[in-house]
Amino acid sequence: MEPFELSLTAAAGEIEARRLSPVELIDSVLARIEATEGALNAYACVTAEPARKAAAQAEQEIAAGRYRGPLHGIPLGVKDLYDTAGVPTTCSSAVRAGNVPDTDAVAVERLVAAGMIPVGKTHTHEFAFGAITPTTRNPWDTGRIPGGSSGGSGAAVASGTCMVGLGSDTAGSIRIPASLCGTVGLKPTYGRASRRGVASLSWSLDHVGPLSRNVVDCALVMNEIAGFDRLDPATVDVPVPDYTSGLDRGIAGLRVGVPSNYYFDRVHEDVAAAVHAAIGVLDGLGAELREVTIPYADEILAAEWGILLPEASAYHQEMLRTKGDLYTEDVRLFLEVGELVLATDYIKALRVRTLMQQAWARMYDDIDVLVTPAMPVAAPEVGATELTWPDGSSEDVTTALVRLTSPGNLTGLPALSLPVGFDAAGLPLGMQVTGRPFDEVTVLRVGTAYEGAVTTVGRIAPVV
Amino acid sequence: MEPFELSLTAAAGEIEARRLSPVELIDSVLARIEATEGALNAYACVTAEPARKAAAQAEQEIAAGRYRGPLHGIPLGVKDLYDTAGVPTTCSSAVRAGNVPDTDAVAVERLVAAGMIPVGKTHTHEFAFGAITPTTRNPWDTGRIPGGSSGGSGAAVASGTCMVGLGSDTAGSIRIPASLCGTVGLKPTYGRASRRGVASLSWSLDHVGPLSRNVVDCALVMNEIAGFDRLDPATVDVPVPDYTSGLDRGIAGLRVGVPSNYYFDRVHEDVAAAVHAAIGVLDGLGAELREVTIPYADEILAAEWGILLPEASAYHQEMLRTKGDLYTEDVRLFLEVGELVLATDYIKALRVRTLMQQAWARMYDDIDVLVTPAMPVAAPEVGATELTWPDGSSEDVTTALVRLTSPGNLTGLPALSLPVGFDAAGLPLGMQVTGRPFDEVTVLRVGTAYEGAVTTVGRIAPVV
Repeated sequence: MEPFELSLTAAAGEIEARRLSPVELIDSVLARIEATEGALNAYACVTAEPARKAAAQAEQEIAAGRYRGPLHGIPLGVKDLYDTAGVPTTCSSAVRAGNVPDTDAVAVERLVAAGMIPVGKTHTHEFAFGAITPTTRNPWDTGRIPGGSSGGSGAAVASGTCMVGLGSDTAGSIRIPASLCGTVGLKPTYGRASRRGVASLSWSLDHVGPLSRNVVDCALVMNEIAGFDRLDPATVDVPVPDYTSGLDRGIAGLRVGVPSNYYFDRVHEDVAAAVHAAIGVLDGLGAELREVTIPYADEILAAEWGILLPEASAYHQEMLRTKGDLYTEDVRLFLEVGELVLATDYIKALRVRTLMQQAWARMYDDIDVLVTPAMPVAAPEVGATELTWPDGSSEDVTTALVRLTSPGNLTGLPALSLPVGFDAAGLPLGMQVTGRPFDEVTVLRVGTAYEGAVTTVGRIAPVV
Repeated sequence: MEPFELSLTAAAGEIEARRLSPVELIDSVLARIEATEGALNAYACVTAEPARKAAAQAEQEIAAGRYRGPLHGIPLGVKDLYDTAGVPTTCSSAVRAGNVPDTDAVAVERLVAAGMIPVGKTHTHEFAFGAITPTTRNPWDTGRIPGGSSGGSGAAVASGTCMVGLGSDTAGSIRIPASLCGTVGLKPTYGRASRRGVASLSWSLDHVGPLSRNVVDCALVMNEIAGFDRLDPATVDVPVPDYTSGLDRGIAGLRVGVPSNYYFDRVHEDVAAAVHAAIGVLDGLGAELREVTIPYADEILAAEWGILLPEASAYHQEMLRTKGDLYTEDVRLFLEVGELVLATDYIKALRVRTLMQQAWARMYDDIDVLVTPAMPVAAPEVGATELTWPDGSSEDVTTALVRLTSPGNLTGLPALSLPVGFDAAGLPLGMQVTGRPFDEVTVLRVGTAYEGAVTTVGRIAPVV
């Protein structure tokens, strides 16, 4: 096994035991980048030399007994939406070409302080405004999309070109690529982690979080990035737990909600079968399954778009006026549509969101977590704009990819996407576990229990 | 002195000592209503019989030793925007003609539980959407407006037809009539008192609060209406102090901010003179005066209207479609304009408000309260639509009346309007004292100190 194939936790164990040097690990990862980037284009830029330097420094520190903990010396991919000091930060857009920030985004700063080594900036769908990431390919089948908007991080983590990728999630942008690329991805509770230094798409729906190769790796990253930041007004001053504590204590007696509506409607049969099988695994582990009805199901997409479109247009308005021709056509169209939304409609969407949050809170009186498919399909083909369903109806690809993840953004609840096997074509499939506000620990515990019972997770994509 | 001339505190003292019966008090107030309503029209409806019954019951309870406290047996005027069980609640609008709610608004319910006796519903500018209250006249000069939107409560408290009037305040609607009618009026901190059961004008700017004849009366009302209500999502679960405690401990050493911009610009010379004289009184009481600069002064009105207009239109949209011809022309025009506001403009107004709140918080690093004029003028004449300033410029009356109070709605800070004398024509003038979030106590303490040093407050208007 090559070092790049290790998960964060596995690599950290080797590094701490001094059986693996951060330099060897970085060299292995950089070689893997070299080998796969031609096919994947997961990175907007690779920072090989700074990474090698940082690895050499980490090696010295560890040799001198100054081991900082499990993130020390671990390669990190940073979504190009995050500011990185001295490293180009373009949001994968010509609009921001040449932009080099002076400071790191808070999440990057904290992970680097914990010893992580950024190896480059991963591609995002332009300004995070899309679920495709057209720059990048899926490592399980390069004729497929990686999903988006954190498509570069999904492709990189899945193919072994970093151990953890940072993502952001406004309508599913962490969970979509995690599901389509077969990685773990966590969108924490709204306000759990600071977004300072990350370009905004829609601030009342935006979240930051990690993609990783297994659940405990996600927990280790959360231990660093969670917490209050008075300069991100969304963050909340709620105590930060140790996210790894108690992860392996099982799920006997946990009340697991299984939706009778919405989440299994218009879902590919392979997805439904894989998720039902995974729910069976949870049942076998002692979870108490409970059928629940998703409230306001018919309003989800209207509320999501009614909030996201005008908030994005407000953020981009000045740039759209001065550099409109530099946007890709699909993003420019979204931004122009968002300018036409009336304040009264936006206000109604905000109100529906509040009613939805209250109704979801009541739903959680009877359950501890909700389990659902993460995506209705495996990764669509590159260039496809529509999906065709067995009843002959068709659906816009973007709509299909965001409709099962958007509830997590509207409610703000923590939601984990977790690989639950492959379809007949060998493409990964994902399950979504959604928990109570600030209860990431229970969500991660369900993921850990599932991982412990199966053997299909954590595989590196072959890049074919 | 007739009983109706007493302040709440004075009447309560007489009632507790059994020198005054609630029945005598109500009879005196109802006779005063009889004598003044022809000239004032402060009430949308008077509930004389239920009030007499409640007074008789209060008399019995008190005789039996079940005195509930200082609000027991005290006549209350309820703004017609507040739901009242079994009593018509029309928001002074033909749109709501015949509307009789089943339950009381939370504030009414609490005050009635404390023993207060509603004597009727006071007129509001239609749906609280205006600063004039055209139905009603000013008791100091019936050729003048009482201000609005809580104009009925202002006229009633000032003329002795109730001891306390409930008001609501979205751009100044408690403080405007308080100032123009010469009463005390308190807009508490945003989220301090539940608005449940009060028709919304603009929920992110709406506040409820009292108008009364002096400061301690306001504090007694706050003791009942302050507090968390999980059904008003704006309310905050912050401990409720005893608002009367420490009110009279003086203001020696208190840091009092006096603005060098905005609040004294385009203000009538009589207003400026009265407020500067009042500030001189505070100085004489040992306050430490500090000059401050109001941040984002040029953005205040744009932010206020950019938020208020579309929020009001969202609330009224369905009614405007079905009963549009029943609105008065000015309110219908406002609602139609609000429908044209773009979401991006509303969002920008929300952002400016956030920046404003942060900048005001920094301003309060150096001061404890801010003192300013409450209104730039005394009560305008009935029918006037514009004011003329000495430099020959003119200003829309509504704009003039809301521009010094709107900062309190945008920042959410507690703001008290307090009578500080009369102009040459015998019309009352008001000073505004604005404090830190949830620090109504300090604001009331400044008012109490001022009251104690002068003799002009608490006078009943002659109704001329």
